[in-house]
Amino acid sequence: MASQQFDPPSGTRDFLAPALRTREHVFATIRAVFERYGFEPLQTPAFERLETLTGKYGDEGDKLIFKILRRGEHEATGEADLALRYDMTVPLARVVAAYGSQLPAPYKRYAMGPVWRADRPGKGRFREFTQCDIDVVGSASPLADAEVVCALADCLDAVGVRDFRMLVNSRKALTGLLEAYGVPDSLGGGVLTTLDKLDKLPPDVVARELVDGRGLPVPIAAALTGDLTAGDAAERMRIALKDSEQGGAGLAEIDRLLELAGPGVGPERIAFTPSLVRGLDYYTGVIFEVVAEGMPGSIASGGRYDGLIAALGGPDAPACGGSLGVERIIGLLDAAALEQPRLDVALTVLGDETLPELTRLARDLRAAGLRTEVYLATSRKLAKQLKWAADRHARHTVIYGPQDRAAGTATVRNMDTGDQAQVPVASLTAHLAATR
Amino acid sequence: MASQQFDPPSGTRDFLAPALRTREHVFATIRAVFERYGFEPLQTPAFERLETLTGKYGDEGDKLIFKILRRGEHEATGEADLALRYDMTVPLARVVAAYGSQLPAPYKRYAMGPVWRADRPGKGRFREFTQCDIDVVGSASPLADAEVVCALADCLDAVGVRDFRMLVNSRKALTGLLEAYGVPDSLGGGVLTTLDKLDKLPPDVVARELVDGRGLPVPIAAALTGDLTAGDAAERMRIALKDSEQGGAGLAEIDRLLELAGPGVGPERIAFTPSLVRGLDYYTGVIFEVVAEGMPGSIASGGRYDGLIAALGGPDAPACGGSLGVERIIGLLDAAALEQPRLDVALTVLGDETLPELTRLARDLRAAGLRTEVYLATSRKLAKQLKWAADRHARHTVIYGPQDRAAGTATVRNMDTGDQAQVPVASLTAHLAATR
Repeated sequence: MASQQFDPPSGTRDFLAPALRTREHVFATIRAVFERYGFEPLQTPAFERLETLTGKYGDEGDKLIFKILRRGEHEATGEADLALRYDMTVPLARVVAAYGSQLPAPYKRYAMGPVWRADRPGKGRFREFTQCDIDVVGSASPLADAEVVCALADCLDAVGVRDFRMLVNSRKALTGLLEAYGVPDSLGGGVLTTLDKLDKLPPDVVARELVDGRGLPVPIAAALTGDLTAGDAAERMRIALKDSEQGGAGLAEIDRLLELAGPGVGPERIAFTPSLVRGLDYYTGVIFEVVAEGMPGSIASGGRYDGLIAALGGPDAPACGGSLGVERIIGLLDAAALEQPRLDVALTVLGDETLPELTRLARDLRAAGLRTEVYLATSRKLAKQLKWAADRHARHTVIYGPQDRAAGTATVRNMDTGDQAQVPVASLTAHLAATR
Repeated sequence: MASQQFDPPSGTRDFLAPALRTREHVFATIRAVFERYGFEPLQTPAFERLETLTGKYGDEGDKLIFKILRRGEHEATGEADLALRYDMTVPLARVVAAYGSQLPAPYKRYAMGPVWRADRPGKGRFREFTQCDIDVVGSASPLADAEVVCALADCLDAVGVRDFRMLVNSRKALTGLLEAYGVPDSLGGGVLTTLDKLDKLPPDVVARELVDGRGLPVPIAAALTGDLTAGDAAERMRIALKDSEQGGAGLAEIDRLLELAGPGVGPERIAFTPSLVRGLDYYTGVIFEVVAEGMPGSIASGGRYDGLIAALGGPDAPACGGSLGVERIIGLLDAAALEQPRLDVALTVLGDETLPELTRLARDLRAAGLRTEVYLATSRKLAKQLKWAADRHARHTVIYGPQDRAAGTATVRNMDTGDQAQVPVASLTAHLAATR
């Protein structure tokens, strides 16, 4: 094992080639989907001014911000003036404020890159991790919500996560629900926070917390938890919400989303889920979350948050968006081990006098698009170099010894079969390009 | 203009879609070349432990490190425990130390990503900028140097920078040069630092600095500056170095590099340049630098640095490598404005009742690989939506009004020519995919 002194800092990771290639493959696949939808990429700096970030993530969030010490003569003050990006949304609000009319209207952007949070590192929880967001700023249309939902579902399909369910609800429906069940306004927020646990805890445990922790009367708690976990919960809620103005508006926007996005996501994979709450309180319209078999938590989520861009320092614009849990998705795929690109040709070096010819050959092979390496260590023994070629997963090894040289040929060894063939040096590149 | 409050922090940049795509295109082009050479990607965290970085970049470098404040109860100490990556070489040394036998031997890796330096921002000088390095750790072979040099030259060709010159020298040749011209050992380092200015200052100015600033006798200063700037400088040096052991070894390694890499780089673009010094004192073998017409400074550089990995905390391994000045290269290309991907299809929305059909159509078009957007703003006026489609640089706009709907057709407008055609809805995707 590596000495701890050489480990990356706690909560961060070094990505060697195989892991990095798997990640890049997932990112490229997702990017291609976003591009097909006309989302545009945005990249902001790794750090922002400290004041841009503080106060935007609540007290708990603020504690997790990595702050950068002032420099030069100011370093001794121990003060910070910059901070590492904590999410992609605050930088988006800043960019919309800064570039306004230079941006397409509405502004559909995707952002995929690292964010940093000083969380306690744990299984699957990192201090440096990739976030992947799409947002539409400047459109109040239900079509914008549908586009976000369809794009995220397409991404999951594209990376091979097909066995998922998308839960849909609406902030307005939740408000109507509180109204319909007679939950006092003052208890509303707390009640929703507790109801959010229905996906993890049994209904009676949640009901007890609603009573003991939130002060809800027992009959209301029982009715709420009973109806929300019933097999026909959606139908019960449709009836309960009918007479509430907010509830009716919520149902209408849910139905519009199901109508517009359902055929794209797949009707069997998307459903109105009245118990879906989502922890964050900035949502104003539809909300959604994607869960997959065998995965704890969600692998995608989002919704409409019309006041958020303004609250984060941007202009007052309607907006909606969503995130893909790329780290979780990559975690799912790691087991299946993406195929790595192989070395096409390994060139052995049996005598230093052949180096000029071998470098010319390497140049020709690379120009033909073949991934080629020349043996760079000092040994001139063939067995050792064949082991190197095998370790590098080469498809073919070219052996060019004194006899080959005299005959104007080289020996091409197929590393999968062990077959060897004599090939004239002049046609070696064409030969290897053809066997690719 | 944007209010300064919304600008990115001093010395950093926001990359909107056009600039970001140009950058990503350059990075992808470079990556493809490195992959053809069998270099493997490596990505390390944005920050390292502070002690991993301090003391590695000299006093001036240490001052430019962005330090991260300790968190939680330790924040009040004003101390830092982490620091943003300052280059790619110290993390490489840590990775080689940490993963040793898990890495291919020799370890050929490339790294491309941001580094952070608290430099005073200026024209073309940023606090967050991309570095692009290749290194071969664990090979003392001259072929390794040649592979690095050829890979970098191939990258320049691939990104369209073809009018460059690669200057080659050797640390040993420089040592031999001091010996051959009788420069006292004690003055050697300072004399080389001053000779490094011969590419920017006239020979007599450099000679004066050698005498006044470095204490070199006048005849030696005159001979050195005269010979190094003569038209036949390389020939004069070959003669001068012949009798020096170090000088002879240096000439041999230069000649070996020219023999192995010259045909790949192009013999007319690479030359022994005895006045090339390079500022950094960790080089032990060949050194090189690439200059291009109309560019101040170099756009690529590198050499052999056999002791560096150990000095940076890694194992004692021979190594060589080089960097591409990607920010400068991208600066060169910006003027030529890379072609941006266009929107293939803009779908107008003339009535809300058509939204389900339009979302289905969008889905089909995207499934056929066409970059497609649906109009997301509220106006239902065609003129406004055509302007949107033009602003989005769409190739085609689909108009699907009430008459179209009744006829089972849609109108396809070619946005470059203004031509319009009626196309049956059922064959719209095939039609648009064919006109791509």
